[in-house]
Amino acid sequence: MQMDYTFGPHKIDHKDVFYTTHLTYAFVNLRPVLPGHVLVCPKREVKRFADLTAEETCEMWVSAKRIGHLLEKYHKASSLTFTIQDGPHSGQSVPHVHIHIIPRKVGDFEENDEIYDAINEAEKELKKRLDLDKERKDRSSEERAQEAEEYRKLFS
Amino acid sequence: MQMDYTFGPHKIDHKDVFYTTHLTYAFVNLRPVLPGHVLVCPKREVKRFADLTAEETCEMWVSAKRIGHLLEKYHKASSLTFTIQDGPHSGQSVPHVHIHIIPRKVGDFEENDEIYDAINEAEKELKKRLDLDKERKDRSSEERAQEAEEYRKLFS
Repeated sequence: MQMDYTFGPHKIDHKDVFYTTHLTYAFVNLRPVLPGHVLVCPKREVKRFADLTAEETCEMWVSAKRIGHLLEKYHKASSLTFTIQDGPHSGQSVPHVHIHIIPRKVGDFEENDEIYDAINEAEKELKKRLDLDKERKDRSSEERAQEAEEYRKLFS
Repeated sequence: MQMDYTFGPHKIDHKDVFYTTHLTYAFVNLRPVLPGHVLVCPKREVKRFADLTAEETCEMWVSAKRIGHLLEKYHKASSLTFTIQDGPHSGQSVPHVHIHIIPRKVGDFEENDEIYDAINEAEKELKKRLDLDKERKDRSSEERAQEAEEYRKLFS
């Protein structure tokens, strides 16, 4: 039996999780803004980045570095966006520290900054969706599980 | 005598630097998008985030955590944006890994994502300005040095 993970007030199905360390885990997105858009967070529910221990900070970012590198290759991308929206006035919607990792390609957004509009929309959507338990049983749940399974192979 | 720092092909005056660790340094911006917008980077010239050692990654992010926390308080802000634009197709203009840290307040940008337009404009501006050595001797050089001096006190 595998445990689900806590993401703020929500549960993340272990099938959506593709990478874990002692203190952190990474999972696929309900609504990625681009292929390979994933989230990395501490297992412990921590609202603000400043509240992480040094050990959590290191594990989370060393994980993000490795994940970004492999997903960039996997998605044949050429760059990465890493962002933490930290606190309610930065666009953070789920009060549990998380890094957005997004593989980037030439011309994926007409203007580079449009990626951030999309992140904000995705955060709102994520919150809405996570609030609706039923939604987590539809086809996208299988799609996510399949994506997570592919990513798991990259790290094994 | 104090050494200047390397930021991609550019030099950063030691007067603009307000925080250093063994492997990293932090400096004030030529053109901050909001008060307290600063940059943290490895001392070693490294283009992509994946090329950092684990030790550099940890020091850089533990520094960013501390700096963000203190600058948020100093600027009476309530949130923070942390971003790495990693690679040429993510909006990165100076090919030397750097974290943008930006204290955020209610309503500082009409739409939260406008902060990222501003980061991109600032990156372009930073590059242009750094190319012009003369510009580094005008008043804004003194302003930056003064800002850096104030921040240095926060960390002493």
